Amino acid sequence: MPSSYGLKCPVARTLDIIGERWTILILRDLFLDGPRKFQDFERSLAGISATTLSARLKRLEGYEIVARRFYAEHPPRAEYFLTDKGRTLGPILKQLLDWGIRHAR
Amino acid sequence: MPSSYGLKCPVARTLDIIGERWTILILRDLFLDGPRKFQDFERSLAGISATTLSARLKRLEGYEIVARRFYAEHPPRAEYFLTDKGRTLGPILKQLLDWGIRHAR
Repeated sequence: MPSSYGLKCPVARTLDIIGERWTILILRDLFLDGPRKFQDFERSLAGISATTLSARLKRLEGYEIVARRFYAEHPPRAEYFLTDKGRTLGPILKQLLDWGIRHAR
Repeated sequence: MPSSYGLKCPVARTLDIIGERWTILILRDLFLDGPRKFQDFERSLAGISATTLSARLKRLEGYEIVARRFYAEHPPRAEYFLTDKGRTLGPILKQLLDWGIRHAR
């Protein structure tokens, strides 16, 4: 995990999980839109590569923040959604949103 | 500004300012310790290069989140501190801290 800070502080540990580029925007989309397909993220996150998106989603799945389920069998179609643990990130997203509205015009 | 997302959403605009690697930990140190010298950051942020630290501080100064003042003349010694605008980031830091304590052990 090369992007980990390796620091004990809780802020750094949080960032080890959600601090990588694009990760918070993936979470934002899940909070705003609910369950989404891989292609939905590619559409909303202009500039992300499929490789990066796949790595970010996999990592969020590993931390049990995001989970994947199949909603069709032929052909199999998967969608990603926030777990209960993922929903606990809501207040962080809310603060980032509020600050942007007030101070980052 | 290559690390900017270039998206209109307020979350993305906030991350354009504070989302780069190390930036939030620099802010954390300023919230916890008050005014600090360049060397103080190098000590607490194990692994950051002087070049990166300098770039991050300069960018935060550019956004008027951090300011610099000289507290000695011979030789000149500078310290960095949070501006009033910088202090408005407190609730974001608080949420990152709380989440780390509860969920990132």
